[in-house]
Formats: sequence, C-alpha cells, structure tokens
Amino acid sequence: MTASRIESDSMGQIEVPATHYWGAQTQRSIHNFPIGVGRFTWQAPIITALGILKKAAAQANAELGELPDDIADLIVSAADEVIVGKLNDEFPLVVFQTGSGTQSNMNANEVISNRAIELAGGEMGTKKPVHPNDHVNRGQSSNDTFPTAMHIAVAQELQRRLFPAVGALRNTLAEKAEAYQGIVKTGRTHLQDATPITLGQEIGGWVAQIDFGLDAVQSDLPGIYDLAIGGTAVGTGLNAHPRFGDTAAGYIAQITGLPFRSADNKFFALSAHDALVNLSASLRTLAGALMKMANDVRWLASGPRCGIGELMIPDNEPGSSIMPGKVNPTQCEAMTMVCVQVFGNDAATAFAGSQGNFQLNVYKPVMVHNVLESITLLADACLAFNDHCAVGIEPNSSRIADNLEKNLMLVTALNRHIGYDKAAAIAKKAQKEGSNLREAALALGYVSEQEYDNWIKPLDMTHTG
Amino acid sequence: MTASRIESDSMGQIEVPATHYWGAQTQRSIHNFPIGVGRFTWQAPIITALGILKKAAAQANAELGELPDDIADLIVSAADEVIVGKLNDEFPLVVFQTGSGTQSNMNANEVISNRAIELAGGEMGTKKPVHPNDHVNRGQSSNDTFPTAMHIAVAQELQRRLFPAVGALRNTLAEKAEAYQGIVKTGRTHLQDATPITLGQEIGGWVAQIDFGLDAVQSDLPGIYDLAIGGTAVGTGLNAHPRFGDTAAGYIAQITGLPFRSADNKFFALSAHDALVNLSASLRTLAGALMKMANDVRWLASGPRCGIGELMIPDNEPGSSIMPGKVNPTQCEAMTMVCVQVFGNDAATAFAGSQGNFQLNVYKPVMVHNVLESITLLADACLAFNDHCAVGIEPNSSRIADNLEKNLMLVTALNRHIGYDKAAAIAKKAQKEGSNLREAALALGYVSEQEYDNWIKPLDMTHTG
Amino acid sequence: MTASRIESDSMGQIEVPATHYWGAQTQRSIHNFPIGVGRFTWQAPIITALGILKKAAAQANAELGELPDDIADLIVSAADEVIVGKLNDEFPLVVFQTGSGTQSNMNANEVISNRAIELAGGEMGTKKPVHPNDHVNRGQSSNDTFPTAMHIAVAQELQRRLFPAVGALRNTLAEKAEAYQGIVKTGRTHLQDATPITLGQEIGGWVAQIDFGLDAVQSDLPGIYDLAIGGTAVGTGLNAHPRFGDTAAGYIAQITGLPFRSADNKFFALSAHDALVNLSASLRTLAGALMKMANDVRWLASGPRCGIGELMIPDNEPGSSIMPGKVNPTQCEAMTMVCVQVFGNDAATAFAGSQGNFQLNVYKPVMVHNVLESITLLADACLAFNDHCAVGIEPNSSRIADNLEKNLMLVTALNRHIGYDKAAAIAKKAQKEGSNLREAALALGYVSEQEYDNWIKPLDMTHTG
Amino acid sequence: MTASRIESDSMGQIEVPATHYWGAQTQRSIHNFPIGVGRFTWQAPIITALGILKKAAAQANAELGELPDDIADLIVSAADEVIVGKLNDEFPLVVFQTGSGTQSNMNANEVISNRAIELAGGEMGTKKPVHPNDHVNRGQSSNDTFPTAMHIAVAQELQRRLFPAVGALRNTLAEKAEAYQGIVKTGRTHLQDATPITLGQEIGGWVAQIDFGLDAVQSDLPGIYDLAIGGTAVGTGLNAHPRFGDTAAGYIAQITGLPFRSADNKFFALSAHDALVNLSASLRTLAGALMKMANDVRWLASGPRCGIGELMIPDNEPGSSIMPGKVNPTQCEAMTMVCVQVFGNDAATAFAGSQGNFQLNVYKPVMVHNVLESITLLADACLAFNDHCAVGIEPNSSRIADNLEKNLMLVTALNRHIGYDKAAAIAKKAQKEGSNLREAALALGYVSEQEYDNWIKPLDMTHTG
Repeated sequence: MTASRIESDSMGQIEVPATHYWGAQTQRSIHNFPIGVGRFTWQAPIITALGILKKAAAQANAELGELPDDIADLIVSAADEVIVGKLNDEFPLVVFQTGSGTQSNMNANEVISNRAIELAGGEMGTKKPVHPNDHVNRGQSSNDTFPTAMHIAVAQELQRRLFPAVGALRNTLAEKAEAYQGIVKTGRTHLQDATPITLGQEIGGWVAQIDFGLDAVQSDLPGIYDLAIGGTAVGTGLNAHPRFGDTAAGYIAQITGLPFRSADNKFFALSAHDALVNLSASLRTLAGALMKMANDVRWLASGPRCGIGELMIPDNEPGSSIMPGKVNPTQCEAMTMVCVQVFGNDAATAFAGSQGNFQLNVYKPVMVHNVLESITLLADACLAFNDHCAVGIEPNSSRIADNLEKNLMLVTALNRHIGYDKAAAIAKKAQKEGSNLREAALALGYVSEQEYDNWIKPLDMTHTG
Repeated sequence: MTASRIESDSMGQIEVPATHYWGAQTQRSIHNFPIGVGRFTWQAPIITALGILKKAAAQANAELGELPDDIADLIVSAADEVIVGKLNDEFPLVVFQTGSGTQSNMNANEVISNRAIELAGGEMGTKKPVHPNDHVNRGQSSNDTFPTAMHIAVAQELQRRLFPAVGALRNTLAEKAEAYQGIVKTGRTHLQDATPITLGQEIGGWVAQIDFGLDAVQSDLPGIYDLAIGGTAVGTGLNAHPRFGDTAAGYIAQITGLPFRSADNKFFALSAHDALVNLSASLRTLAGALMKMANDVRWLASGPRCGIGELMIPDNEPGSSIMPGKVNPTQCEAMTMVCVQVFGNDAATAFAGSQGNFQLNVYKPVMVHNVLESITLLADACLAFNDHCAVGIEPNSSRIADNLEKNLMLVTALNRHIGYDKAAAIAKKAQKEGSNLREAALALGYVSEQEYDNWIKPLDMTHTG
Repeated sequence: MTASRIESDSMGQIEVPATHYWGAQTQRSIHNFPIGVGRFTWQAPIITALGILKKAAAQANAELGELPDDIADLIVSAADEVIVGKLNDEFPLVVFQTGSGTQSNMNANEVISNRAIELAGGEMGTKKPVHPNDHVNRGQSSNDTFPTAMHIAVAQELQRRLFPAVGALRNTLAEKAEAYQGIVKTGRTHLQDATPITLGQEIGGWVAQIDFGLDAVQSDLPGIYDLAIGGTAVGTGLNAHPRFGDTAAGYIAQITGLPFRSADNKFFALSAHDALVNLSASLRTLAGALMKMANDVRWLASGPRCGIGELMIPDNEPGSSIMPGKVNPTQCEAMTMVCVQVFGNDAATAFAGSQGNFQLNVYKPVMVHNVLESITLLADACLAFNDHCAVGIEPNSSRIADNLEKNLMLVTALNRHIGYDKAAAIAKKAQKEGSNLREAALALGYVSEQEYDNWIKPLDMTHTG
Repeated sequence: MTASRIESDSMGQIEVPATHYWGAQTQRSIHNFPIGVGRFTWQAPIITALGILKKAAAQANAELGELPDDIADLIVSAADEVIVGKLNDEFPLVVFQTGSGTQSNMNANEVISNRAIELAGGEMGTKKPVHPNDHVNRGQSSNDTFPTAMHIAVAQELQRRLFPAVGALRNTLAEKAEAYQGIVKTGRTHLQDATPITLGQEIGGWVAQIDFGLDAVQSDLPGIYDLAIGGTAVGTGLNAHPRFGDTAAGYIAQITGLPFRSADNKFFALSAHDALVNLSASLRTLAGALMKMANDVRWLASGPRCGIGELMIPDNEPGSSIMPGKVNPTQCEAMTMVCVQVFGNDAATAFAGSQGNFQLNVYKPVMVHNVLESITLLADACLAFNDHCAVGIEPNSSRIADNLEKNLMLVTALNRHIGYDKAAAIAKKAQKEGSNLREAALALGYVSEQEYDNWIKPLDMTHTG
C-alpha cells in the first residue's frame, strides 16, 4: 500500500501519494479524466514551458514588489528543476481535461509549491511558506498562463526540432540538385512524357517548395512570440501588477533566448489561438511539400524493372515477407503517412480554434497537442528520410538516357521553327508507327536532317546553359 | 421601372415585383442575404422537394380535416406547378440565409399561396383565400419542413442521378474486367514490381471498391427516408394534427415512389442531421474509390514511352498548348478534382452537423447544399469518365507482356519449393547483374531448368484457373 | 553494455539485443524509423491482433497440411503468449514505418519464431525449427496479414471498449430522460426562446442521436469482419493453400468470438481500406452527436447566475486558479476536445484511404492508428463524462419554471385559434412593453381571459400527454 | 438549327456554333466535360485574368521581338474586350476539365485569336493572321499561363472584394468597441460567469482577431504576386524568350496596378500551388475569427427572455413560420454557414495541393475555384452582416447591469487582500444560499463593509481606467 498525505483545495481535502509533489487539484484531475492516459499524457515540451513560465512569473513578481524575494527565489529554484526535466514524473495529467488547461497550470503550481516548501524545510500540503495560488500563480490565471506555456513550447520545439531537421533534409536535397545539374532527363506533366529538364532542376523544385514551406512557418513566429501573460482571468489583467505581463514576457524571452513579448490585445490572446491555427496550416503546407517530394521520389524509383526507374534509393530492409528480394520505398511511405497525420492534426486544430466563446477558447490543450505532435512527426520523419533515403538517392543513368532518347515531346523544340500544327503531326506519326521522332520528322519532310539535329538538343531545351 | 405590389408579413409592408409570386419574406431575404447570388441560388432539386412537401402537407391536412378541401385543392394545384419546375424563377433565395431555411420555406408558402390565390381568382398579397402561414404552412414549421425537403431532394437526386451514373461506370469497368481476365500482367505493390495478376483482376478490384462505396450510400438511405415532418417548431408537433406527420409522410412516399416515413424522434430530426452527415461520408468513401481507380488508370496509361504504358485510353483533345501531339489523361484529372471537392464538401457538412444547439441545428441549408453538390459532381464525373474514358480503355499488350517477362517478383513462386531465403538470393542476383530470373536461378543452382519452368508460370500465379 | 546475438535476413546479418525475441527486420526498423517513438509505438490492440492472426494461420496451415503439427503447435504456443500480452515489450515498432505494416508483420513472425524456437529448446536466430517466413508467415504476406490484424484489432476494441462505454452514457441519459419527462421548460431554436418541451424530450433527443451514431458504427461491422487473409502479396493468394483464407478466418472467428470471414474480393481488400474509412466516418458522426450533447449540457448549465442555468452539473474540481469558487463544465470540455480530435483523425484516415495505388494501399498503419485512437478516446471520454457528469445532472427547477413563465413563444398555441398574424402582434407587443403574454393578449382584445387560460397550457404544448 | 463553322486543331476538324468565337478545343471540352455546368462554369474573375495575361504576353512578345507589332496589337485589342467582360459568354468551360486548365487557356487563345481575326477582317477558324497557339499562346504553355491567371484572379478579388468588405465590418465593430468602452458587464469563461469586462473590451477582442486574420491574408500576398509565367511547359522556359517571364509579369503589374513579378523557381511554380494553399488557410483563419464573433453575437443576443440577452440585434425578418413574433440571429447564421463552407473549401484546396506529381500539379482549376469561392462568400457575408446586423448592435443596458450585479466572480478582487481560499469560501456560500456576494462576505467576517466596497468595484476590475 502506498503512503499518502492529505492535500486540500477549495473543494476540500483529498489523499495524494506521499511520493509525489502534486496536490489536490492534480489528484482530482487524475481521478476525473482517465482519457487516453499514456498516449495523451503531457510530455516534456509543455512541462518545460510551464516551468519557464512559473520561473519568469516569480522573477517578474519579485521585480515588481508583488512577491518577497525569498518566496520568489524558492519558486525559481523549484521551477528550474521543472525546466530541466527533473520533475517530469510529477506531471501525470492528460490533454483531455478542462479546456483551459487549468489543471495543468495547477499541477505546475502545486508541484512547484510543494517542492519549494520542501526546499524551505516546510511541510508539503501546508501551502506554507509557498502557496500554489497566492504565490506560484501570483498575478496569473490558467487562462493566460496556459496559452503562454503553449506558445513557449511550440516556439521551442520549432527551433530545437523542426528547423534543424527539415533544414538537414533540405540541404541534402539542395546538394543533390547541385550535383545532378548536368543530367538531362524526361520531364513529366499529367504523368505523361514532356519536354526535358535536368535532374538538378527537378530536385531543385522540391527544394524551392520546402523552402517556401519553411518560410511560411517562419512567418507565423511573430504571432507565436505574442504571449497572453498579463491577461489573467478574462484579459483585463485583474489581480496582476499593470507591468506584470511585459515584465514576465521579458523574463521568458531572457530564459529562452527567443523574442517573446506580451500580446497587445489580451482579450484576443485568451479567446482565440489563431497564431496556432496559422502555424498548424503552415505545417500542413510544409507537409504537402514533403508529400509531393516523397511521392516523386518513389515514383521515380518505381520498378525496378516495370516502373519509371530513373532514381535508385537505398535498400534499408527486406521489402516483403513473401516476395523475396523486394525493396520498397519505405522512407517515402513513412513520410507520406506523417503528412496525412499532419493534415488530420491541422483539421482538429482549426476546428478547435473556431469554437471559442466569449472570453475564452476552451480547446487549448487539444490545440497545442496537435501542433506539437505535427512538429515532432515532421522533424522525426525528415531526419529519418534524410539519413535513410535522401543522402543515398542516385540517378539510374542508363534508364534516364534511354527514356530521354525515346521521348516524343522533344518535338516541342520545333514549334518555333515549323509551328505547333506541323510539330504535332510529327509526334503523332512517330507515336502511331512506333518510330523515333527524327525518322518521323524527316519522313514528313518538315525539317532537314541538319535542321533536326540543330534544333533538337535536349540539354539546350532545359535552358540551363 | 418595374411594377410592384405591396406584400406584408408580421414586420409590416414591403414592395415586391408585380411579375413575381413571392411575398414579403422572400423579398426581405433577397435584400438581407446578397451572398453568393447565382452560384448559391437554390436549384431544382430543393424547389421540387418543397413543392412535393407542400402538396403532401395539403393533402394530409385535408384528409385530417385541418384544411377545407377547396383550399387544399388550390394548394395542390399550385404545388404541382412548383414540382414540375414551372415556377423555378420564383425561388430567388440563396443557401446563405437563416440556418433553418425559414426563408425558403416561406418562399414556397408565399409562391404557392399567391399562385393559388391567382388560380382562385383572388388578389395576390391579400392572403385570401389561401394564407401562406395558416394554410400552406398548416401544421408545419420551417424547422420540420425544411429538413423534410432536404431529405426528399437528396433521396431523389441519389435515385435519379447518382445511382444510374455510378452504375454505368461500374458496369463498363465490370465488362472490361471480364474481357481482360486472360491478360496476365505485373502486379505492383509499393509502386514496385510484384507477383502477377490478370488485368481482369486489377480492374475487378476497382469494381469491388466502387460496389462497396455504392453499398455504403445505399445503407444510409433508411436515415434519409426518415422525415422530420410532424415535429413543427421544436419537435413536439405543436399545432399539427397528431397524425399529420405520418399522413404527410405517406403522401410524400406516394408522390415520390420512395419509402419515406415520419421519423421516430422528432427532437433528433430537427436538432441534428446525422443521416446527411453519414451520407456525405459515404459519398466521400465512394469518391475515395473513384480517386483510386482514376489514379490507377492514369498511372497505368502513363507514358506513352517513359512511363508504365500498360493501358491505352482515348485521345479526346489535344493535351497541351505548347507540346504538340501530347495526350493527357484528362478524364482522370476531372474525376480526381471532383473527388477532392467531395472531400471538401464532406468536411463542411460534418462540421456543420456538429454545431447544433438545443432544439435546432441552424446549418441546414449549407449541409444540404454540399450533399447535393457532391451528388451532382460525382454523377456528372462518372458519366463523363464512362463515356469519354472507361469505354475506350484498352490494354497495351506488348508493353504488358514485356513488363511481365522482366519482372523479378516471379521468383515468389519458388518460396514453397526452395524457401524464402534462397528465392531472395536469386532475385537479388538477377537485379544486381541485370540478368533475367531464370539465368540467376540456374546459376545459383537452386533449381533445375525443368523445375524453374514448372514452377514459374505467371498465369498459374494469378490463381485464376 | 547489452549482450547481443546475431540475427539475419535477406539483407544480411545484424546484432539484436540478446534479451529480446525480435529478429533482424525488427532491429532494422528500430534503426530506420525513429519517428514518434513512444506516442506512436504500437499498443496492445494491434499486438494482440497479430498474435491471434498468427495463431489462426498456424492452425489453418496445420489443418490444410501446409505445416507439420509440431511446428504449428509451437507457433500456437508462442502466439498465445503474444495474445495475452506477455510479449508486449517485444513489439517496439512504431506506426510510421513501411506503409504495408511489413515490419510489424515481420516483428510478429520473428518474435513468435524465436519464442517457439526457445520453447523447442533451439537456438534463437537460427530460424530452426521454426522459420519466421517459411513457417510463421506460411501462406501469408504482410499485404494480407496486416490489414487482417487491423480489422481484428478494430473489431475487438469496438466490442470491448466503445460499445460498453458509449452504451453506459447512453443509458444514463435515457434514465434522465425518463426521470424528467414531467418537467416542462422553454424550448430553444436559433438560441432564441421557442415553444415548450419537457426536459425528458430534450434529453431524449440526445439519446436518439447517440443511438443513431451507434447504429452507424454497428452497420459498418460487416465490412470490418471481412478479412484480407488469403490474398497474400497482391490478392491472388499466391503461395497460400486455396482454402487458407477461409480456414484461417474461421479460426480467427473462433478465437475472437466475432463473425470474421474471408473477404470476397482480395484485390479490394489489399488495395483499399474503405471499411475503415466508413467506420472512421461513423465514429465522426458519433462524435458529432456527443459534441452536440456536451455543448447543450454546458450551455444549459451556464451561469450560475448570468447564463441559462437550467441544469446543475457536478462540481468535480475548482474551476479556476484565479477566480475563487468558480465551477466549470470540464467534462463537457474534455468531451468536445475529444470530438474535434476524432474529426481530425477521421480526416487523416479518409485522406490516407484515398491514396492507394495498384494492388496496395500503403497507408495501412496510419489508418488503423487513427481509428483505434478515436475508439479509445471516445470510449474513455464517454466513461468519464458518464461517471463525473451525466449521472449527476439535475434540473434547476426554479430557474426552469421562471424561464418558462416569461417565454413569449407560448403565444404559438394561439395560431390555431386566432391566426399567425394576430398571435405575432401579441408577442411583439409584450416584448416591446416588457409585459407578459397574457396581459398583451387581453389588451389587444384578441382573446378572452378564459380562452387564454384554456389555450395556453405549456404541458399540453409539449404533446407528451 | 444553329449555324456552325468548322474549326480544327491537332486532332482534326469539329463544328462549332457560328455565333461564338471559340474554337475546336473549347468545343471538345464542352462535349467531354459536362460536369457541374452552370455552378462550376468559370466566372468573371478567371476570364478577366486570362484576358490580362494574354494582353501582357502579347505586349511582352512584341517588346522582345517575338511577335510583329500588328499581330500583337490585334491580340491586345481582343484581350481588352475579354478584360472588360464583353466576351464573357465566350467562356463556356467548367472547373472540372483537365487539371492544368489547358482547355481554358486554349479557350482564351481561341476566342482572342478569332476575335483578332475578325478585327483584322479575316475569316474565323483559319487561324490567320492570328494563330491561337503560335501567336496568342506565344512563349507560353497552359502550365505556366493558367497558374498565372489563377494568381491574377485571386489577387484582384482579394483587393476588390475581400479587403473592403471585411474592412467595413471590422471598422463598424471598432466603432462599437469605442462607443461601448464605458459599459461594464459580466465576463464569461467556460460559459460561466467570470470577472467583469467592458463591452468595448469584448468587442475589441473580436476586432483584434479579425485584424489578425486580415494580416494573415496580407502576409500571403507576396506568394500570390509570384507568377509562373515564363516557365512554359515544365518550368525550363522552353520556347519562350529568356526575358519573357519578367517582361510579361511587368506588363501584368502595369495593367493591374499590383506588384506581380516572375517567380524565382518556375519548377515549383508549376508543380505546386502552395501560395494558394497558404492563402486558403489564412481565409480559414479569418473564417474562424468571424465564426467566433458571430457566435458571440448570437449568444449575447440570445433570449429575448430566457437567454443571455445582453445585446440587441436588428429584427430584419420574421423568424419563424410557426412561432409568431420570433426574431432570430439570421445574419449570424448566414455568416457561420459561410465559415463552415470556407473550412470545407480549404480542405479541398489543401488536399488538391498535396497531389502534384513531377513537373505539374493537375488540380489547378479546383484549387483556384475553391479559393475564389471562399473570397466571394466571406466578402458577401461580411457586407451583409455589417449592413444588416453589426451596425445595429445595441447593448441591453438593464440586462447587462442586472447580470453584473449578481455575478459572484466579483469576489476575485478579494484574492489580493484575503487570499484565494477565503475568497472561494465567500463565493461558495453565496451560491449555496442564493445570497449576494456582499452579504456572504460580511457574514463570514473576512472583510468589513468598507473594505468590501473599496475592493469590489467592477469598473476598476476591467483595468480600463
């Protein structure tokens, strides 16, 4: 049997495990919300963010004379332990709780309060000398702290995980684009043979699209750096020092090294999370770019013999439990599965974002959960794709050359010389007879041998010269 | 300048064009809701459904003694004109009006009332002898009539348009599957060469998937046949004769030839439209099936020379304004564009369906609009695809044979004889050396010539014998 | 340093931890797919389903003479340990792997093979006497086993978790509907006061909607009971005994007690998962119903003093970290957050479902992941909502009575007696003057006192008599 | 019988109506794509954009010496007629055609060619002196012209319609916020009574959110101003003068007055339309903001007697066909229906955007259709909402005052003085006993009368001073 102690809140007393720092409200939430436990238990990014927030709030309150320095110091010490992950096991709550994240805010308040009490040599549960509400939550409400923690967590995960991972893949592809700028190949539109491009151009198109997606994410950052802190319960800042929001945001910026600031309109900052909705959409755009790239890779690598087969990708594992020797584009598949998940997460986020009422949107936890999950998945998938696929992409030169040679759309280069209609007649004749373009062109008498050879130069047609 | 007459409602008087039958509330709606006019103006299916409903209501009220026969007869005559489309121009309102469809219900009441007055030799606008509320809307509320009209319209469009059109395409494909059951070809999984199938099996998979989608739509029909009529304002049936719902539903069934009935729970029937949400989802499933089929067709027809090229599809139009002689899988593209639209429409429908409050869901018009649009688009696209693509699909036999011959996955047939690991070694050796499977198998000494020829028989591997 | 042993597959040798049963392909997947580890590691439902499948396959192969009885018995013994969860730690792989689930199928093959080898006193990694491919995977391919496991897992989770949990909530609400059938209250449409209903009718509408959603899920079960097993690599059943699919499905039915059967068209069963797409949509419909109910509950409980306040719900925890004494509808919020997540999961599932190519849809893992997550969340949320909210819902009788008395829409009962237009005049007069309806009606002289009292009887207006 | 003439293209001859300017490929498309005719026939924005593009292309080609001046002048003259809408009836094609928009590009080429021929006194259908491909489409491909037209159309519709309409509503609300900054009222979080705010703050939160949405749309404009023109068939610019893209973009900027430019990477510009996906998402964010605002308005206006009733909105039409005197928040309903449609349109757009292959995304028409529809609907709905609702919003001062007075959450102001726990006890006592806060506070002895009156000042609590 586990030892317990008594904790209390405004609803009365409750037993909590003696081995844990959390208090009454955390315990009630464990009891009331056994929903998706494990998979939906908050992970490090949110816990760290709550720690940063509570530290900054204590520093701001001390600076503004709202908390005695000794109390503030105790809070800072305990919060530092939260930040570095020492107390991760003290955060047992799940996403599907109250929609304001109140219980997770109180979880942080309780854990920091009790740990601070312990550091001060006090008795846990007594709320002395550090009270979870009156001290740790000083000048705050869940309604402004939780969205502040949401933004901190998201910004940090973008910086720590998403940008490096997607950047690594982007750079690998850019190097490939550079390396293969001299390889001329068949372009394809409508899945049909089209005029030539270089492999470098093809891959460069992926790079440009990924860059565009990354730029979209970057352009959402100012909204993420705007913090709700200072709005307290409904946006008016009741019970907070008038300079608390700005001061706390300043400390958060200092702790994280990111340009956080106090949002101009706190009513908006509590009642809607459109910066997260926008970010979610930009992650979706990025996912769309990665999906297109991964699909192109697997189609270009299709075969090995009965597909397009112009790219070779690494063989990382046996592809089939029944077909011996089969190799499949598994990294492409993991990537595209991640992309559809990001689309789904975005749908949930935007739906949730539209459902605010009056002074509060009460879908905060599910919104930040989906955004963080999309960031994690995209980052992980980009790293895996980079390491286990992109770096090993190689052209299948003989197949590329073979395809290029038989491509009838080289005829397009004749438009400027003989007009579209005659060029069309040449291509149709060649396709109908199974002949090559040169034979058909000469047979129709629309060009001389010399003209044909002067005008149809695949490399020139790529305009890379 | 247009002549006008004065119409009135409970808010007062208003001028309406003398050339039109509609009354005060329709006129107010024209003024108040200039949103998406044209594209979102109600079309025939909803207008017809309102006519059917008003006719049936009059018949039911007459039968139950709630309306004098002469009044009912006048309403029936006017409603008949609505049903056959003679008065379509009298329905100028758009989807984006009040969320109960009240204004379109009143539009029907007003038009039928005034046309009935005209038939009776009365003066339009006087509401005598046929009052739009007290007579045409007798025992009804917009809250039960509009969802009833929604179900009538949807059921009729499914029967008249969707089932025949999708059925035609399905049958064409089934005939192709039958015709090509003897053509053995390369199967493909993960876009990579796999063990053989017949073209008939491949096409048959599409047919089975379409059948499943059609079954899903069919299985939603009972919910569509359940009508809200009889619930009036909030579901209690206030002001309607106790047998009005059943009786009116009976007349609707009689007029349409479809098994409509009065819903068991009218509170549910007004406050939610989950039968439409389900139907929308089944249309989405069907769209997913059509998307997969259309994608397979265009990939199998890709090339003509640098793709898979195993199918030939009709050349309906020049494919490119710059590349002469190019032919593109345009029917596949129209179909897949329709499918993504159906996905979008479904997202709107389900979102709307979740937003009911208390006794009413006030997203009725946008829900039925999206469902009807999806039905129309799927029906039109299936007919176009059938006529201009599916009927003309032909195998490219030489390409199919060529691909099959070089397919390394024929090695799978050896698993049962020599085990997976040795079979894998054969395939890998052949791929590495660019040799054929038979050579590699013999070189490794795992099978004799006779064994190879006995065991590797592509047609047998399709299990069609 | 961890001890290791050497395992091998068709790509060569690899070290695996000596303490684990898994083999080479599992180990490669751990290395290649570090994507969402933890949150997306497969959980019990899929592991159990793979165990059931492998057991049934061994039984079928033994019955059909495809496996010696002793080998089959060893496989069955090892699979039984998988089924009961003894080997859960041997399944370290994540959702985002190859899109066919090959690596998880091989994970099962390897674990069962090595455990069977151990049971037989052999040496792990030797594949003797039980080979992961040739014996455990006998007559199977990932392409048919993984979708089979998907259906087993989903069907079992529906039966074990979803139906009981949603059913419990549904029954609690049905009891409330019964208990409160005599409480007459204001109906509301467009959020505006409407004609009266009983609280029983209002709650009964929720019950009917939930029942409809449950029926939708039930109606998808036949598609879920159709199994891909027997199709092997591409749907032809190559390398499986002709009766293997039916026989294995029979054993699966026997083990689970659910009416599983072998699907009619295996090409469809591998290349699309439309039964899961349909099911996902039905879960979305159910979520829409629960969202509507939860929203109604929290709006009806809004206040306590400045909202509607007609319902009282349990106070489970302090509602605010800053506003003392505040009680919030937290179970409603958890429920509606779950609902938007289910919407997002459904979007991912349907998107994935549309992306099959040729003989395989390679989004299998992400599809089943989302469906299982939706089932879990809906089940958990319904239980929490039931236990911590629904059972404690009570009417606030004085507020209900007060609201009903001042509701102007009682005037609707006069329509049948004095016509809509005069009734409207009464309501407008009362609203304008702030008077009550009776006063306004008498002042206008449209009814006598006796008539008013005879005609306006709220309980009668609910038609519950 | 309609007179016809013969037109031809690379597939041969075809009859077209003599009364129309279009040519062979338009006629083939009419025949091949009878999908959603009417509702999905291209409207003015796309037609105008095609006209602008063709004019600019002719000007650029003339400047670069690629077209003789007389031919260019003829094209410009005909294109000018397209731009001003004189030839709208010559554009009969629908969205659901080929996914590159080739047929609409050719429709423009054909109409302009034939009209130019007519202006030159030539014979329509002879392609002399102005050839649809060689002259009107000079240096262009559908693959770069259609996406260019998409961007032109979208940018113009944003400028002409969306920004003015949303801006008008935003300004009306900002004026209301200013006007009502002195009205103190109950704040609401979790739908429950919370600490006070002013009505000006509440409305100001809506304004801030709408501003954020507008900013999001604005921040997408640079991507929209990037044009594909110059990329021709696959992005290489084959057959276009090297400076054609820049020059043509310059003319487009000159004609439209918008800062269009030639995109840096044409491969990206043809194969993906992520700028449109981003824009669609920003429109969705804006829709979410409008949805929240419209929902707040209707809830605050709920009642008139049994709801919140703090706002009064205009009575524009009778609200019910059965409940006399009922007034409903119909503009809110139209707005929220528009919002769910925008969400659905966005889902379609993003899905389509993810489906590009190789050098082309062939979902161009459906993408621009959805984006344009969302722009139109949001613009129309904002104007209607502004004119028929927002301008008439008025506070119900007595209800606001009454609600504020009884709001228990005023107790929050005591936290700083007596601590959270004692404040909670006061609120709970008052709620339990139905007493007011002051009575409960004094009864518990936690504050004196003077303290209570000094500390609990609702206006001060809004921090507006």
